[in-house]
Amino acid sequence: MSYQSIKEECLAANLALPRTGLVDLTFGNVSVADPERRVFAIKPSGVAYDALTVDDMVVLDYDGNVIEGTLRPSSDAPTHRCLFLHFAGIRSVVHTHSRSAVAFAQAALDLPVLGTTHCDYFNGPVPVTRTMTPEEVGGAYEWETGKVIVERFAGIDPMDVPAVLVRNHGPFAWGASGAKAVENALALEIVADMAIKALSLNPAAPAAPGHLLEKHFSRKHGAGAYYGQAG
Amino acid sequence: MSYQSIKEECLAANLALPRTGLVDLTFGNVSVADPERRVFAIKPSGVAYDALTVDDMVVLDYDGNVIEGTLRPSSDAPTHRCLFLHFAGIRSVVHTHSRSAVAFAQAALDLPVLGTTHCDYFNGPVPVTRTMTPEEVGGAYEWETGKVIVERFAGIDPMDVPAVLVRNHGPFAWGASGAKAVENALALEIVADMAIKALSLNPAAPAAPGHLLEKHFSRKHGAGAYYGQAG
Amino acid sequence: MSYQSIKEECLAANLALPRTGLVDLTFGNVSVADPERRVFAIKPSGVAYDALTVDDMVVLDYDGNVIEGTLRPSSDAPTHRCLFLHFAGIRSVVHTHSRSAVAFAQAALDLPVLGTTHCDYFNGPVPVTRTMTPEEVGGAYEWETGKVIVERFAGIDPMDVPAVLVRNHGPFAWGASGAKAVENALALEIVADMAIKALSLNPAAPAAPGHLLEKHFSRKHGAGAYYGQAG
Amino acid sequence: MSYQSIKEECLAANLALPRTGLVDLTFGNVSVADPERRVFAIKPSGVAYDALTVDDMVVLDYDGNVIEGTLRPSSDAPTHRCLFLHFAGIRSVVHTHSRSAVAFAQAALDLPVLGTTHCDYFNGPVPVTRTMTPEEVGGAYEWETGKVIVERFAGIDPMDVPAVLVRNHGPFAWGASGAKAVENALALEIVADMAIKALSLNPAAPAAPGHLLEKHFSRKHGAGAYYGQAG
Repeated sequence: MSYQSIKEECLAANLALPRTGLVDLTFGNVSVADPERRVFAIKPSGVAYDALTVDDMVVLDYDGNVIEGTLRPSSDAPTHRCLFLHFAGIRSVVHTHSRSAVAFAQAALDLPVLGTTHCDYFNGPVPVTRTMTPEEVGGAYEWETGKVIVERFAGIDPMDVPAVLVRNHGPFAWGASGAKAVENALALEIVADMAIKALSLNPAAPAAPGHLLEKHFSRKHGAGAYYGQAG
Repeated sequence: MSYQSIKEECLAANLALPRTGLVDLTFGNVSVADPERRVFAIKPSGVAYDALTVDDMVVLDYDGNVIEGTLRPSSDAPTHRCLFLHFAGIRSVVHTHSRSAVAFAQAALDLPVLGTTHCDYFNGPVPVTRTMTPEEVGGAYEWETGKVIVERFAGIDPMDVPAVLVRNHGPFAWGASGAKAVENALALEIVADMAIKALSLNPAAPAAPGHLLEKHFSRKHGAGAYYGQAG
Repeated sequence: MSYQSIKEECLAANLALPRTGLVDLTFGNVSVADPERRVFAIKPSGVAYDALTVDDMVVLDYDGNVIEGTLRPSSDAPTHRCLFLHFAGIRSVVHTHSRSAVAFAQAALDLPVLGTTHCDYFNGPVPVTRTMTPEEVGGAYEWETGKVIVERFAGIDPMDVPAVLVRNHGPFAWGASGAKAVENALALEIVADMAIKALSLNPAAPAAPGHLLEKHFSRKHGAGAYYGQAG
Repeated sequence: MSYQSIKEECLAANLALPRTGLVDLTFGNVSVADPERRVFAIKPSGVAYDALTVDDMVVLDYDGNVIEGTLRPSSDAPTHRCLFLHFAGIRSVVHTHSRSAVAFAQAALDLPVLGTTHCDYFNGPVPVTRTMTPEEVGGAYEWETGKVIVERFAGIDPMDVPAVLVRNHGPFAWGASGAKAVENALALEIVADMAIKALSLNPAAPAAPGHLLEKHFSRKHGAGAYYGQAG
């Protein structure tokens, strides 16, 4: 029995990244998990997108062992693994250095809920993590990155807010599929760009009221959703 | 007797949206009305633009009943319907989340008349609506959105200012045809982008004088128009 | 004897506008003159770029009479004509609503000399004109626009600074050929974009020293030029 | 024995510039050196990228004499030559007027270390040079430009920080190959764009901690590198 299915989904999601404009150079990677078998496929490290093939995808188990593939996995693989272990319900993680989301991460600011585009995807501010200690950075750095994300989500449902801003670094987003995780990463970048422009016009731009946030998020998510054709 | 003509015009106008760069993902929709028959065609909800066909267009009457089409109409259909009922002379409504116009909506600021590009399209500031109440949002939300737009246009001729900024949300634009409504939505985004840049250089950027506004708007609209080949 | 040569040069320069990204919709036009015969060709009003042919170009004499062509000339033709009459040595005028240059025009600020990209094209700040009076706007508006440009260039050699910012409106640029005028319009937009970013980082960004301005402008212009292959 | 190899590498690197969006018009050039033979190939001055051929590349020796090629070399050749003479280990120099890097050069600000994208490429702030004197500008200007760069790197290893911002001018970047130098120039522009956005959100955006900088730079450079497939 092979991992062809998650490798193909992983390849397709990685190839979507340069098309969306979310990544420059090789600054981005996507993983796709099979939670029942406790494995995930991930992009190899530092390989150009236009050269990727399905056989280049590297498969790891939830303990971090490479179980299929000949290339070295993305150096961020331990961060992905940490999120798969802690965030129930997610099947795919996307990491990019998309520029407007990075701007919030570098500004050390949560991305505030300014409008309905945000509300359609994120049921609250997209949080920024705390500064990592020298011990965390000097140790198992990428694993520790995952841990500070998990720590930041104490009290936040990762399916309600499917993205985070790692301070001085950039965004991670996730979802129930590779395509959905990439869409969330793209929505994050769009919303961050809108927020930069809105805050430049009005640094005191008011947060969207809670009833508007609840309305828009529930229009698209959960039992009462009525957006799209599937509901 | 069928609705082929407005469905085709509606499809063409929806397909123009991604070409203009006005929409990300599926954040936008266009409707086209036949005011004499009191019906309008609108994009189906959450369908990707590159998959749209003329038969996907959904036709509703002015009471909101679907009278042709098998897909669910855009969730914003009641807002469009409200505008068709209240704004005489418009035949098409466009809703987008275009980023610079959204920035003004999120900043809770009217788009001021800073220059002739604005004057060529909008005979005054493009207004931002008030905050919607929990009752309005919790009730027939999209219909109520239309009502706050109509409320905001008390004293403003919608043909003079063919766009609005819904607070914490984004722009709606309209016009006498699908093509014209899309052009107005695009002009709004361009003018908003120019205004963001101008206000970043000079937060006290002066409004264009009234005589310049009148001159430019009348160059392109009304009995004295002399721009283009048709006048 | 016909005007084929300037009509072809005029068409080519107009077609360059959308390729450069300088124009949105139909917000731009180029004219090319034959100063010896005191005539110029100009884009027709409000025609889409992708539909333009050489026979659509309209030829006017320096008194403003249409002497060849069946379409209505650009409504800005009197501004172009005024510049051909007053600025010796120019053979082509370009008008756009390019967004960053418009931002300076709307901010009512001269474009300052912040760096060598500016110095390579403009031997001093690119000036903004004064506010036009109700009489000027209500009268022969486009001709008066040309006159306020000429007024603003008292003491400035238009070949040293081949562009202007019309207040609350946008840029005009010019040059010895259609291609060169378009290049100047593009350089203006690039320099304005750089200046917006530099001033957002440091509102007190220092002007380039006079000796650097002189050096760079003379590297590319005049008897001592040593940039490129032609000098 | 000919210089075919460095001419081909030089052509390829120059052709990469317009593809990356780093250059407008002809505002950029790349050189590639053969340090053992003390020669370098460089783009000819003012030639459009789409017309360049390998035989257009101009080869100079380290004394500045043209030893192969019929075109005039880039006017910036003496700056490149100065860097090859003083910065051991570099084989290629790239000069652009990329807009966000220019913005820092015009703002007279070092590009600060705000996040890991920066750390992956530059082991510290990217420095801005001092104002050049009238004597330096009026004399052997392009050579003196090289000298102020070298002066600014007193105490900085050019392989640790492979780029500089020349005040009131723009960036130079370098690397061990033409491709690497272009990548560094592109990374610089990306990082500058992120920094402009971050500083607009938070003018007091905190520098990335030293331990994070060290970690990221060493992940990609030197003996302990573990990013990519080659390490």
